[in-house]
Amino acid sequence: MSIHISKGDQSKYGSRDWARIINSLSGFKSANLVGTISQKGVTNLSIVSSVVHLGANPPLLGYILRPHSESSPRHSFLNILETKAYTINHISSSFYKKAHQTSARFPMDESEFDGCGLTPEFYDGCNAPFVEESELQIGLNLVDVLEIKQNGTRLIVGEVQDIYIKSDVLAKDGYINIEALETVCVSGLDSYHTTKRLERLSYAKPHSPVKALDSEGNVEE
Amino acid sequence: MSIHISKGDQSKYGSRDWARIINSLSGFKSANLVGTISQKGVTNLSIVSSVVHLGANPPLLGYILRPHSESSPRHSFLNILETKAYTINHISSSFYKKAHQTSARFPMDESEFDGCGLTPEFYDGCNAPFVEESELQIGLNLVDVLEIKQNGTRLIVGEVQDIYIKSDVLAKDGYINIEALETVCVSGLDSYHTTKRLERLSYAKPHSPVKALDSEGNVEE
Repeated sequence: MSIHISKGDQSKYGSRDWARIINSLSGFKSANLVGTISQKGVTNLSIVSSVVHLGANPPLLGYILRPHSESSPRHSFLNILETKAYTINHISSSFYKKAHQTSARFPMDESEFDGCGLTPEFYDGCNAPFVEESELQIGLNLVDVLEIKQNGTRLIVGEVQDIYIKSDVLAKDGYINIEALETVCVSGLDSYHTTKRLERLSYAKPHSPVKALDSEGNVEE
Repeated sequence: MSIHISKGDQSKYGSRDWARIINSLSGFKSANLVGTISQKGVTNLSIVSSVVHLGANPPLLGYILRPHSESSPRHSFLNILETKAYTINHISSSFYKKAHQTSARFPMDESEFDGCGLTPEFYDGCNAPFVEESELQIGLNLVDVLEIKQNGTRLIVGEVQDIYIKSDVLAKDGYINIEALETVCVSGLDSYHTTKRLERLSYAKPHSPVKALDSEGNVEE
């Protein structure tokens, strides 16, 4: 059975069901925890499924922050504005349930680290807390905030300062085997998935078939 | 073996290796084809791994467009500015090699549909071509373009007009089982992956353990 849903069908669905439909459209999403700390020293963790690559030189990552207001404050955003620092930590299959729990509405003075059973880890050179359980941790400095005026969301733009990878999954051509780290991905609002690699593919050229690469980035003969 | 890479290490890596490292950081990425058509009627397909959910009401999706200039034109961007319409099409395991091939530098007057062996499909109400091979197709209207001034990339903001799903994978709570569609995800610049669901999790509340949901969104007892 084939399905057609148009924008005009929104009224046929409850708002939560509509949100689940629209949240399913982008495809599989990255699964990360954003770590911050307030000037008072309260740590914060927030699960985000919208981290996106913006560029390598300078190394920039973005993520989408839902509308922030006085009545519905985003604690992580307040912390980032205060400290200009935050971390992005890959969620792996060993702690995705704890990571999901960070989406609960904890009060500002309670750390999601404590509330969800995760461990803050601090490294020299970054004010914000990393997630010790994470196999791939990134420290960033805030460089810009762009508002999407149609719905009040914001694109948080950060520059990568430090990358910590807990095992040797860096191929000699720079590819990081995040599947070996058991990094998970998300579909919709609440579904978590592990992955199975089909293959790496060579740089594409017109009218020349793409070739499979081995794990180190060499063309397989 | 644990690895620390700092921003200052960039000069130790070649620019392509550095790009592979940074492109691996965001986690798993969505895999979509953006379909457009020029006013002259030449269709265009472009693989993007940066489609991101922006909001459900109104239904907005974003994606990141790499720097566009006269010397390095983004044909899809020119088409979107001309027609204000584009499509986003999930890439599934049955045609990911053809989809990867669309990243080759085809001339403006040659369609990637022809060059890569994919089939344009047109529906009433949308000027832009969909990808017939795709199991989940979305028609959008352009609503905004935000420039990330640090590197000249742009966030293309579009409003969903129509959704076409080729089989009945819509749960009664609105969740779309994109794993059943064999939608793939991407890591780094060139690695394609299928997925295996761990589970769906219930809406999180503080100090209350999250529960598994069945495929229809009911709490499993």
